[in-house]
Amino acid sequence: MRKTLPGFFYTDAAHFRREVAHFFFTKWVCAGRSDEISNRGDYFLRDVLGESLIVVRNQDGGVSAMFNVCRHRGTRICESPCGTFPGSIQCSYHAWTYDLRGRLIGAPHMDDVPGFDREDYPLKQVACELWDGHIFLNAGMARPEGQPLQQAGVKAGLQVGPPPLRAQLGQLVERFRPWRMEELRVGHRAVYDVHANWKLIIQNYNECLHCPVLHPLLNQMHHYLGADNAPSESTFCGGTMGFKEGVETLSIDGKRRRNYLPGLGVAERSVVSYFSIYPNLLLTLHPDYMMTVTLWPKAPDRTELLAEWHFHPDEIARPGFVMQDAIDFWDVTNREDWHISELSQAGISSRAYEPGPYSSRELLLWDFDQVVLRELGEDRSP
Amino acid sequence: MRKTLPGFFYTDAAHFRREVAHFFFTKWVCAGRSDEISNRGDYFLRDVLGESLIVVRNQDGGVSAMFNVCRHRGTRICESPCGTFPGSIQCSYHAWTYDLRGRLIGAPHMDDVPGFDREDYPLKQVACELWDGHIFLNAGMARPEGQPLQQAGVKAGLQVGPPPLRAQLGQLVERFRPWRMEELRVGHRAVYDVHANWKLIIQNYNECLHCPVLHPLLNQMHHYLGADNAPSESTFCGGTMGFKEGVETLSIDGKRRRNYLPGLGVAERSVVSYFSIYPNLLLTLHPDYMMTVTLWPKAPDRTELLAEWHFHPDEIARPGFVMQDAIDFWDVTNREDWHISELSQAGISSRAYEPGPYSSRELLLWDFDQVVLRELGEDRSP
Amino acid sequence: MRKTLPGFFYTDAAHFRREVAHFFFTKWVCAGRSDEISNRGDYFLRDVLGESLIVVRNQDGGVSAMFNVCRHRGTRICESPCGTFPGSIQCSYHAWTYDLRGRLIGAPHMDDVPGFDREDYPLKQVACELWDGHIFLNAGMARPEGQPLQQAGVKAGLQVGPPPLRAQLGQLVERFRPWRMEELRVGHRAVYDVHANWKLIIQNYNECLHCPVLHPLLNQMHHYLGADNAPSESTFCGGTMGFKEGVETLSIDGKRRRNYLPGLGVAERSVVSYFSIYPNLLLTLHPDYMMTVTLWPKAPDRTELLAEWHFHPDEIARPGFVMQDAIDFWDVTNREDWHISELSQAGISSRAYEPGPYSSRELLLWDFDQVVLRELGEDRSP
Repeated sequence: MRKTLPGFFYTDAAHFRREVAHFFFTKWVCAGRSDEISNRGDYFLRDVLGESLIVVRNQDGGVSAMFNVCRHRGTRICESPCGTFPGSIQCSYHAWTYDLRGRLIGAPHMDDVPGFDREDYPLKQVACELWDGHIFLNAGMARPEGQPLQQAGVKAGLQVGPPPLRAQLGQLVERFRPWRMEELRVGHRAVYDVHANWKLIIQNYNECLHCPVLHPLLNQMHHYLGADNAPSESTFCGGTMGFKEGVETLSIDGKRRRNYLPGLGVAERSVVSYFSIYPNLLLTLHPDYMMTVTLWPKAPDRTELLAEWHFHPDEIARPGFVMQDAIDFWDVTNREDWHISELSQAGISSRAYEPGPYSSRELLLWDFDQVVLRELGEDRSP
Repeated sequence: MRKTLPGFFYTDAAHFRREVAHFFFTKWVCAGRSDEISNRGDYFLRDVLGESLIVVRNQDGGVSAMFNVCRHRGTRICESPCGTFPGSIQCSYHAWTYDLRGRLIGAPHMDDVPGFDREDYPLKQVACELWDGHIFLNAGMARPEGQPLQQAGVKAGLQVGPPPLRAQLGQLVERFRPWRMEELRVGHRAVYDVHANWKLIIQNYNECLHCPVLHPLLNQMHHYLGADNAPSESTFCGGTMGFKEGVETLSIDGKRRRNYLPGLGVAERSVVSYFSIYPNLLLTLHPDYMMTVTLWPKAPDRTELLAEWHFHPDEIARPGFVMQDAIDFWDVTNREDWHISELSQAGISSRAYEPGPYSSRELLLWDFDQVVLRELGEDRSP
Repeated sequence: MRKTLPGFFYTDAAHFRREVAHFFFTKWVCAGRSDEISNRGDYFLRDVLGESLIVVRNQDGGVSAMFNVCRHRGTRICESPCGTFPGSIQCSYHAWTYDLRGRLIGAPHMDDVPGFDREDYPLKQVACELWDGHIFLNAGMARPEGQPLQQAGVKAGLQVGPPPLRAQLGQLVERFRPWRMEELRVGHRAVYDVHANWKLIIQNYNECLHCPVLHPLLNQMHHYLGADNAPSESTFCGGTMGFKEGVETLSIDGKRRRNYLPGLGVAERSVVSYFSIYPNLLLTLHPDYMMTVTLWPKAPDRTELLAEWHFHPDEIARPGFVMQDAIDFWDVTNREDWHISELSQAGISSRAYEPGPYSSRELLLWDFDQVVLRELGEDRSP
């Protein structure tokens, strides 16, 4: 019988540190969208488990990411969660100054220090790749906790980086081409502070067996047993669900108030795609809009969720454009999901908890559990 | 010379976990009163050191208790602190349903899981016994921390339980018969969040040497050196105190505004009984009412106290019934006690603290200390 | 190349406990000023890393200090942060009473306890010395954490104390004689709760390289490269800075609104002295007033700062006396410093942090770092 994971996977602080160090510092993590930083110098900060990272549109038009830590005395350079740098990045303590790719270009009163070379002190880099408008980061920090970060020097020209993002995305790159996600623009953003382990959010997302009991609204839209799951991979899982009679999209009443996304064929217009791209992107693609939820673990029992609704710019520009129907639908449904996940966290924390049996409608959860076990080297079978 | 316990008994987190695991998970703990759940399906939740327990009037008219953890995916089932179940207990995630004794009676989409048998997945049971209207629970969890709870299966018909409640109560059962406590009904409830170790609350309760300095009001009612203590037992200690001239009960002015409890003789009408029933019930019996305080440790330096005032239903029904005089008396006195206990906690936490000498008026405290040492196997004398 | 300390010196909880146990419990710590407790029985409390200490003007006119822990059952005796004792110090639990030097003079119902002798139970003493009005304490607790404090018994007449305060102050005693600090009186007090390690506060105080970027106001008063540093010692470091043209003191506009302090010569009238007396006094002496900041570490990343402005009583008594110009100047400047120290703390906490290079303008910081390493026995060079 397939059963849920032992409780310590959800509650133990040491396990949590080990798990998130693996999933959030050796895998590609979705940090947000390229259209948030359209112009040179535009940036936003992202907090990955206490690490403040700067994501910036650099001088060459690309996106760069770096640790928000001055190389002089370690000061956090940037405080505002988003904004625009004036061509360079300056620390407000002693005026060390970096270009938009992180190279040190000014360091007052350091020239008379023997052996000092600016090229040795760039802002520490974070690998950064884009997929159809999604920005992914890889902080590449697979190293013993508490040890200084070893990175190949920019000076030496070496760059030992992570495997390419495409290896993590696999067939999804091809699968989601029709949605032309890179064209979409964010319309609304909501932040949720959820008192549940990050894996419970993913597990909740991966089954609809709970829909009849938990989601009166969503259950009007889909047949809860009607999922068509793709074969699970080691880096993602998911599938599609068709609509009930008369439903055209997920909105407060099932009505569609925006044109179909331009690249979609008939088949794609009649389903919603639900994919969990490990470790932190829940990608929900509707016929007329995209919802993304990114997961930001804060503690074994706490995860910050950043939900965004993205629309086609042609629709946004159209007179009478509305999005509240889609926002409200998911805000209601998300809150139901987050709340039951919090109750799961509370129950699993009990000493009375022991792994319970999965039904045949919860196989994606089992698949995800096995990924976690394998990645952490804990898949020893008897 | 008899001295107080070493500081770590009051401040150390590991010691606290060990101590409360012993006293609150192998002993009978007073959870409340039977009249709180009079009708079938009535329930209240009790939080024992983070464990949420359901205490419910079951289908047979008795009281059952069980862990608030669904056996499917570990969800906490019940959120409201009290209420009434509609004949069964249903988890709101995937609709697993239990009867009022905790047996699994419904589990959607589990029938096709090979090897699954509903009888294997009852809510985990907590032993439950009553004494004159007091509900006692025994979670019977004497096991290594972090290990899954091993319980005799309901299916196998085995039930290895704790020793009977009477063994813990001893002669108190006979001693308190005249008060007919089972007839009393709760009139008022107050919750206090006290920043002191649970044992300091018990120690404070067990001596009146502090009354002249700390309790101007209480000191008008009793002769502070006038306690008549019963011989201490390993499961409780206590005694009686007579009234000063002109005092009839403990109320804001010493006047009695309710009839004597019906079963009391002349001797019982002239004293207040103060008994600490380890680990968590302070039972104070007056000629005309009962006060209970139950202790709920939250941390080495934090205890939640639930105080209740109980009266005879004949009095409650009488026109002109009042209870504020008794509530106010004890609210004032309790707050004085909780505050000085907090100052004790603060001082004992200092590195300057070392065990200090008990006077001959503090012998019950020494008795309790010895119980703690013996129970934890730390009574090694030189 | 001289570099900053490794990150764990600023973030690790165990290192913090070790470091502050060394610096705050074996060194002399500045607790405040003698003029705060002018009269017999006047006292204030000082919290040193959770230890509540009583500092009191005793019956002989001197200053005594002792732990705020009753020797009976360990109760914290005194709650108000300052006040006046009525000739003796009484615990409000069981009325144990001590004289103003901490000797037990009353203990109700203890006389019939065999072997009990009041002389064995004084309040535990803290060494106390004065320097020109500054009160220094030495809790003398160099002992394994969690062990009871061993002190030479008052009864036995033995007193194994710390080295004299003068050994810690060295040449500063002579250097600062002209300021006659013992004559000054506190005019204003401000408390700042800063989310930074205590050493970052000292480091920030010890260089002015940051002044042009961080302090628009202060930078109008001093030439930021104009420090004249004294040779660093193992117990303090510091130096002087002269004024820019037209500046007479540090006030909101550089104007001096009070007479020069009476003992100062021409040289002392034209500079500000900045000295860090380890571990917790930042002493800033101006031509016309004194500012003190004492540091009270609360956690690796949190320090409470108590800033005080002290003036000559002749000035305070003069009609039209003002001090707001000096208070405002330093409140603005202090807040700038505390905020950048918080950003340093945030950055150093990153796993991307590694020691960075000091410029030649930051040599006092390097000196202080070496003191920390030497005192903790971590100055092993390869």
